[in-house]
Amino acid sequence: MSTETPDAALETELAALPLVDHHVHGASADDLGRDVFETLVTESDRPIPAFMTQFDSQIGFAIRRWCAPVLGLPAHASPEDYLARRAELGAAEVNRLLLTASGVGRYVVETGYRGDDVLSPAGMTAVSGRPAHEVVRVERVMEDVAASGVAAADLPGRFREELRRRTEHAAGLKSIVAYRHGFAFDPAPPGEREAVAAAGRWLADAERTGEWRVSDPVLLRLGLWAAAERGLPLQLHAGYGDPDVELHLCDPLLLTRWLKLVEPTGTDVLLLHCYPYHRNAGYLAQVFPHVYFDVGLGVNYTGSRSAELIAESLELAPFAKILFSSDAWGPAELHFLGAHLFRRGLGRALRHWVDAGEWSERDAVRVARMIGVDNALRVYRLEDAP
Amino acid sequence: MSTETPDAALETELAALPLVDHHVHGASADDLGRDVFETLVTESDRPIPAFMTQFDSQIGFAIRRWCAPVLGLPAHASPEDYLARRAELGAAEVNRLLLTASGVGRYVVETGYRGDDVLSPAGMTAVSGRPAHEVVRVERVMEDVAASGVAAADLPGRFREELRRRTEHAAGLKSIVAYRHGFAFDPAPPGEREAVAAAGRWLADAERTGEWRVSDPVLLRLGLWAAAERGLPLQLHAGYGDPDVELHLCDPLLLTRWLKLVEPTGTDVLLLHCYPYHRNAGYLAQVFPHVYFDVGLGVNYTGSRSAELIAESLELAPFAKILFSSDAWGPAELHFLGAHLFRRGLGRALRHWVDAGEWSERDAVRVARMIGVDNALRVYRLEDAP
Amino acid sequence: MSTETPDAALETELAALPLVDHHVHGASADDLGRDVFETLVTESDRPIPAFMTQFDSQIGFAIRRWCAPVLGLPAHASPEDYLARRAELGAAEVNRLLLTASGVGRYVVETGYRGDDVLSPAGMTAVSGRPAHEVVRVERVMEDVAASGVAAADLPGRFREELRRRTEHAAGLKSIVAYRHGFAFDPAPPGEREAVAAAGRWLADAERTGEWRVSDPVLLRLGLWAAAERGLPLQLHAGYGDPDVELHLCDPLLLTRWLKLVEPTGTDVLLLHCYPYHRNAGYLAQVFPHVYFDVGLGVNYTGSRSAELIAESLELAPFAKILFSSDAWGPAELHFLGAHLFRRGLGRALRHWVDAGEWSERDAVRVARMIGVDNALRVYRLEDAP
Repeated sequence: MSTETPDAALETELAALPLVDHHVHGASADDLGRDVFETLVTESDRPIPAFMTQFDSQIGFAIRRWCAPVLGLPAHASPEDYLARRAELGAAEVNRLLLTASGVGRYVVETGYRGDDVLSPAGMTAVSGRPAHEVVRVERVMEDVAASGVAAADLPGRFREELRRRTEHAAGLKSIVAYRHGFAFDPAPPGEREAVAAAGRWLADAERTGEWRVSDPVLLRLGLWAAAERGLPLQLHAGYGDPDVELHLCDPLLLTRWLKLVEPTGTDVLLLHCYPYHRNAGYLAQVFPHVYFDVGLGVNYTGSRSAELIAESLELAPFAKILFSSDAWGPAELHFLGAHLFRRGLGRALRHWVDAGEWSERDAVRVARMIGVDNALRVYRLEDAP
Repeated sequence: MSTETPDAALETELAALPLVDHHVHGASADDLGRDVFETLVTESDRPIPAFMTQFDSQIGFAIRRWCAPVLGLPAHASPEDYLARRAELGAAEVNRLLLTASGVGRYVVETGYRGDDVLSPAGMTAVSGRPAHEVVRVERVMEDVAASGVAAADLPGRFREELRRRTEHAAGLKSIVAYRHGFAFDPAPPGEREAVAAAGRWLADAERTGEWRVSDPVLLRLGLWAAAERGLPLQLHAGYGDPDVELHLCDPLLLTRWLKLVEPTGTDVLLLHCYPYHRNAGYLAQVFPHVYFDVGLGVNYTGSRSAELIAESLELAPFAKILFSSDAWGPAELHFLGAHLFRRGLGRALRHWVDAGEWSERDAVRVARMIGVDNALRVYRLEDAP
Repeated sequence: MSTETPDAALETELAALPLVDHHVHGASADDLGRDVFETLVTESDRPIPAFMTQFDSQIGFAIRRWCAPVLGLPAHASPEDYLARRAELGAAEVNRLLLTASGVGRYVVETGYRGDDVLSPAGMTAVSGRPAHEVVRVERVMEDVAASGVAAADLPGRFREELRRRTEHAAGLKSIVAYRHGFAFDPAPPGEREAVAAAGRWLADAERTGEWRVSDPVLLRLGLWAAAERGLPLQLHAGYGDPDVELHLCDPLLLTRWLKLVEPTGTDVLLLHCYPYHRNAGYLAQVFPHVYFDVGLGVNYTGSRSAELIAESLELAPFAKILFSSDAWGPAELHFLGAHLFRRGLGRALRHWVDAGEWSERDAVRVARMIGVDNALRVYRLEDAP
């Protein structure tokens, strides 16, 4: 450290932090043409309209600014040059370069969303050389049980059993009740009879349509409560996402009553993303000992504005309750930017407070380590993991 | 450009942009006394309380700071000096000075709110020398049809016919369903029978009271759907406005289901103002190809805070989906400040990112042009307009 | 002033402002051990989890940074050193040091929350040498009347009578309907028969359980309307608070219809705290002449982020409608930080605008005085108070 100016300690430490990306999906092993690439760097599920390009957005500019140099191009390379270079290198090399440059030390990978189209946890480890742990999607397990053939009366029990089996080596669970129904649901666990009746309706419908997508609120509550009782850290999508969500129904405050009911189970609840309700999430993380949150996903999509988003996340919540994630899925640009923009934005907020004399630099370094690494290791019990 | 420092390019370009003010009303041709003036620079419809002056507000300070010099006074002139100078010059000269100084290149004028009390589109052109296009207020057309004498059974048809007639040369439509009911309405188009029944109730009431104000949600939905089917760009008031709104019912997220239903018509939907829900609007503009938004009105009323509001509007939405408007009505100070604060606030956000090395200056200039001019020309199909 | 640089006028004036803390509770006269101290510097009512310390939060860092020097320690002292020093000095000296250092000129003290566990208004005056006025909690008066033994039929009348008696010398009233029910209530005053029926149910329950806590919405409305008719300034808890609130039901916008109904009584309504809905409160304060707000409580808990919170509160509301409060209860650190962070954050926002040429320094000083002192003196009619 002798060659550095004293006040560079924070930035040096931040750059070197082996971040735990506590909610991420696999990188894509495929070469991605422009059309596909653009649709993977937006939460819209519509085709990109002809009058625009998704490169003209905060995330598009962030890719050209920060990813281009990782691929050996000048900053602000054109989309055409960027995609040509990407194609020239090939997906495997692009992934290797971007995952390595991210400096992520450990991945906690959710496998429930199109897990076969992207790298598995083992695949992420193979490319990055970093350990990867699995998070299991609750609703996916229920859908698999249903699709495998089960009587309605057996569904609750079979589901709980399968959840136990599938999570034997898992680091946590994830629920997407936000997407499937929103948070305005009855917070109490459903009765067994109620659950079986709902299962009966669902299975009959699904057999008729061939569509095994669980969206009945009774069954979603069955899933949530089974997850809470499983005792693993439980991630909940909250806030911003694709147009399947009705965003105002994904305000985590709507979970208040459920959070109170689930508190005695001792299960930790991790609110993911939360944008634009991250201040609300910070409130929940202050008042409830079992509630945590992050601002992943929003960091990537707000690009040069992400420093403000991160600063807003540092208000009410104790620093032991804030985590880092990228929520990347597919293009490894998302994995890299999640980590890069987080380091940059967190560093900017902390540097501002240190320079204004409000925080000590030592405290700033300590908080960066808590949010970027230590809180996740503790919550997911990975302190002694390989 | 040779006489400029390289990094002044953005500011020079911004200052020269011939902005398209895509949602504005006419300037007032009247001389305005202090009482009237103050009530026109707030969204309150109450008399200004005796214990305060509306000059002691962000917009009041902005008028004294930025409009005073346009009228030949020093910055921060007192309210008394400002209004005296305004009276001395007369409304016509004040309008000429402020509209000219705004640098607006084209007006898209909504004529449905007390249109007879302010300049018409032609009047705006006469004062400013700039082309003006008309936006027709949907509810106004329905009210005119009702007041002109029509049987309930004929109202839906006559309304659609009149809407077509009145918009033959219009650039777009505007709905104020936010004011009349809020966004918590059944998103589906009403059935013809349902609409006729609602028309019957409304016409009977209106004949009795002499008040032709449409607020029945069935009729408002009739208006919205007729507007969407007309195919012109459709503006919706969202968020902040006068105390007629219940602001929490004007969160544009409440439109999510309606936006999905209306998407197949191909009609572009422009969410106006949106404060304090502009981040929510940005989300909708990212995920739905037909959704656009602006932060007009809020820019004027937040004054020296408007740079932050504008920066917050530059998060999720692709840059092709953000527009500029002032929503000015009456005092030409509002027309001028809308443009001036927009240039200033956008410039500050972009300059910050350029100086931090996150954006190229060339991209910043390009985005300023998109938001200030090009997106509106494209959406309203004015590229080849005179 | 001759020894100062001209542009320090704002900071000098701000530091010297005899702030009116218009919503505060008493300081604790007890020596506070670490466990108790930590639970008093969070809105959580749960024990601090073993894996964390509340010192690792914005407010914890603010205590170490700003309170430590007041107690004679270096900035950023460790929690251990800080609490040891606090114990060494004793509660009385700690209170004297912190209340004096706050520079608060006048306290408006709400006595309804565990008033016996902290200093009374007279006790605050004794320690600080500053006048203190009382604000009476509406629900507390109703509960006292009920617990004293009253027939249901007499409760409304006896309550109104007692409210009058208890507020004979009070500066204002406070309602916690936000905590007890949230703001989604019928805005109209309850009928007498309805109120008596609700009182009957409540009294019967309370006699059975021994728990005299009013939460019936009919009785809460009775309280609110009686308070509005009393004519004193009426404070309403809004937004952020302990986990008794369901935060989304404390958005002050949900009061819109009630605010309209209560407007003709001429009673001023003061929305307290409001975080994270302070922008919504600013809107209400712009459009309704009788609505005021502050961002107390949130300022303390956001610590080094409080400057941004304060800046966000300076958007729509006329400057005559914004007040200062700390909402401190217990540790005098909260009383001191409320004032210190307010001066610091307001100063930073105003300095930024003065330096950018948007505000004159004279206006900035004037606005600081309005928000910090004059608005409260006017609303609570304390201009001529001793």
